[in-house]
Amino acid sequence: MSESRGTTLDPWSGHYAARTAGLSASEVRALFAVASRPEVVSLAGGMPYVSALPRELMEAAALRAVGEQGAVALQYGSGQGLPALREQILDVMALVGIHASPDDVVVTTGSQHALELVTKLFVDPGDVILAEGPSYVTALTVFRSFQADVVHSPMDAGGLVPEALRETIARVKAEGRRIKLLYTIPSFHNPMGVTQDWARRQEILEIARSNDILVLEDDPYGLLYFDQSPAHAMRSVESEGVIYLGTFSKTISPGMRVGWALAPHAIREKLVLANEAAVLSPSPFSQTVISEYLSNADWRGQIDVFRGEYRRRRDAMLAALQEHLPSLSWTVPTGGFYVWLSLPANLDSKAMLPRAVKELVAYTPGTAFYGDGGGRNAMRLSFCYPTPDFIREGVRRLANVIEGELDLLQEFQHTAPLQVQPEVRAGVLPPQVG
Amino acid sequence: MSESRGTTLDPWSGHYAARTAGLSASEVRALFAVASRPEVVSLAGGMPYVSALPRELMEAAALRAVGEQGAVALQYGSGQGLPALREQILDVMALVGIHASPDDVVVTTGSQHALELVTKLFVDPGDVILAEGPSYVTALTVFRSFQADVVHSPMDAGGLVPEALRETIARVKAEGRRIKLLYTIPSFHNPMGVTQDWARRQEILEIARSNDILVLEDDPYGLLYFDQSPAHAMRSVESEGVIYLGTFSKTISPGMRVGWALAPHAIREKLVLANEAAVLSPSPFSQTVISEYLSNADWRGQIDVFRGEYRRRRDAMLAALQEHLPSLSWTVPTGGFYVWLSLPANLDSKAMLPRAVKELVAYTPGTAFYGDGGGRNAMRLSFCYPTPDFIREGVRRLANVIEGELDLLQEFQHTAPLQVQPEVRAGVLPPQVG
Repeated sequence: MSESRGTTLDPWSGHYAARTAGLSASEVRALFAVASRPEVVSLAGGMPYVSALPRELMEAAALRAVGEQGAVALQYGSGQGLPALREQILDVMALVGIHASPDDVVVTTGSQHALELVTKLFVDPGDVILAEGPSYVTALTVFRSFQADVVHSPMDAGGLVPEALRETIARVKAEGRRIKLLYTIPSFHNPMGVTQDWARRQEILEIARSNDILVLEDDPYGLLYFDQSPAHAMRSVESEGVIYLGTFSKTISPGMRVGWALAPHAIREKLVLANEAAVLSPSPFSQTVISEYLSNADWRGQIDVFRGEYRRRRDAMLAALQEHLPSLSWTVPTGGFYVWLSLPANLDSKAMLPRAVKELVAYTPGTAFYGDGGGRNAMRLSFCYPTPDFIREGVRRLANVIEGELDLLQEFQHTAPLQVQPEVRAGVLPPQVG
Repeated sequence: MSESRGTTLDPWSGHYAARTAGLSASEVRALFAVASRPEVVSLAGGMPYVSALPRELMEAAALRAVGEQGAVALQYGSGQGLPALREQILDVMALVGIHASPDDVVVTTGSQHALELVTKLFVDPGDVILAEGPSYVTALTVFRSFQADVVHSPMDAGGLVPEALRETIARVKAEGRRIKLLYTIPSFHNPMGVTQDWARRQEILEIARSNDILVLEDDPYGLLYFDQSPAHAMRSVESEGVIYLGTFSKTISPGMRVGWALAPHAIREKLVLANEAAVLSPSPFSQTVISEYLSNADWRGQIDVFRGEYRRRRDAMLAALQEHLPSLSWTVPTGGFYVWLSLPANLDSKAMLPRAVKELVAYTPGTAFYGDGGGRNAMRLSFCYPTPDFIREGVRRLANVIEGELDLLQEFQHTAPLQVQPEVRAGVLPPQVG
């Protein structure tokens, strides 16, 4: 039973599966309602800057999908995805050093659905999934929805720390618990923005191998580097011990919901069956539009355009942080969408959020990225969506909020955590914001 | 552990979740490989006749989705689906007598994904799901993938039999097992082609209410009637005890993967969270194309066109059965895609399939639609996809196969079931077919 009967009007409250108790609205989700108001500068979401995608190229791809490929695009497809698209996905993965067979690619409804399917295949209630601390919020939601215990392992400016990972594994094993997966985002990490170098990737792989742990390598941002390409994917040198997840959400369009998993062969077969059970097939229409775009547009050149856009935004954010919050510390991403800002130890980013929203700036509190209450005095700042001017203005507002909080604390010598206003926790704003 | 280590090369065979043991290739899936060869008349699949959908209308919808709605269609969306589309879905459901709020509609990646999400929300291992016997094959796959025990309840020419359902429920309850859902397809059932009348729907609802069982009403075919509309949906008179599933796969295009669930309010909230965890959002692009089509095309008139096409095919199949197999019995569908053919008791439709494929006709063996080995001397014949001429030729070939089998049995007085050739069971054809 997922809820006590006394507090709900749901007549089916006694009927839910045990796993449903773990399904709750994420803090990021509640923020979407806040962040979508036009007067708020949102540094909260992870929406790509799709305006930079030329509409005429997408129109042409959509027209060909209906007119030339309609017999495939408008019909049911296979659970593994279109063969032509799987071949093209190999070209994309070659850019991160991966060479594989199209037989081992499974197209999914965004890489999010690959996360869901892999978790469904591997996780029994109580199994442990190791993840970076912090980690991608909706991965944590998926893991919890299958009753996994997420155990975070520490990071530094170079990503997941191998020595700490060894200790984490030893501790979990000593407790007699089963570790099913190591979930990692090696390049331009969400939410920290940091990147593992090649030596560290190799060391983490070796730790996983020697402990018989399957690595789930999530790589949504790897192609969005600002200066030079990050190290090759872990999967480039380890085909049996890694499931690699990719997506077109950041390099083309998230509205298509087309991602993929590259999996060891035996796992791939089960992924296809799980995909069929879940959705029969990923959308043949979306897959065909993506495939036609890849066939006819300069997709590599377009990724360069995105890189330039995101680099300008990153630069704007770093400069604004330096100008307005010089006493704080933050990560310096060399690609991707995010900066991780550390606050003074006596500030609570979640408690501060209502005031920030009142000052018309939104961010994601650090606690969203932990399954264990960590991250209170940190926040994720996204530079992917707003223009550089809005980013500068957003950071300026944020600095005012942080300074105001610090003044307040100093004035009253008040060190207890501030209370979150329930209205904002539920994603509903006070009537007169700003 | 899902597999014994001795019979697999999968290094991760000891790592899968317990539920993964229930995930195996369906018989229908194996058939797709067979049925897709052009020389085979396939009466096996459930692919709609999408050629009847005017391409220019879909091109126009796709163009508007990119050009006019691109800021929404190409971006991430919400886990509940686009508000405009949810309003339009109300218009569709009004045709089956349902009046509801758009707040209670959850758009999904085909109604298949609604089946998956509902099962994930409600089913603990060992819970019972009641289903018609026979029932939709990929629903059974989903139920098994969450370790449900499917218990079939008998049908007759009027669909699920209320009196038998009462007995089934009493028996399951007496065994101390928990019934979580009653899964039913009241209109133009898959695979039987039969339809519950209004009195029977009301009686089944009453049985579910009095036993505190949630009804999962699956209605992919309800608008595809040949003469007159079937009875209103169960959901039209019961909003708290029914989750209604609809889809655009049969009335527009399955390649879009857009379906929906209409759920009691408290369940709807959980469905949205489960949807977000699984795919973040159903494809905003597909949703927008569907929404633009509904806004600008004569979608009701197009459903009339589909009705006419499928009626002609149904008529061709019934006439051919009467001509070539007059001694057998079959259901007479008044809508939908399927006829259910009963064979003489000593014939095994699964065992007969290799010979049928050699004679260049394919069907789906009855066993695919049961979780308990039932259906051996029955088969599903689909009339949705082939032209009337091909349907007549397919039935003629099928009659030859059946007569050949009966001759063989008579000649050798051989009543033991024939063996299925493993090559065909795995979906791989012998090299020289036909």
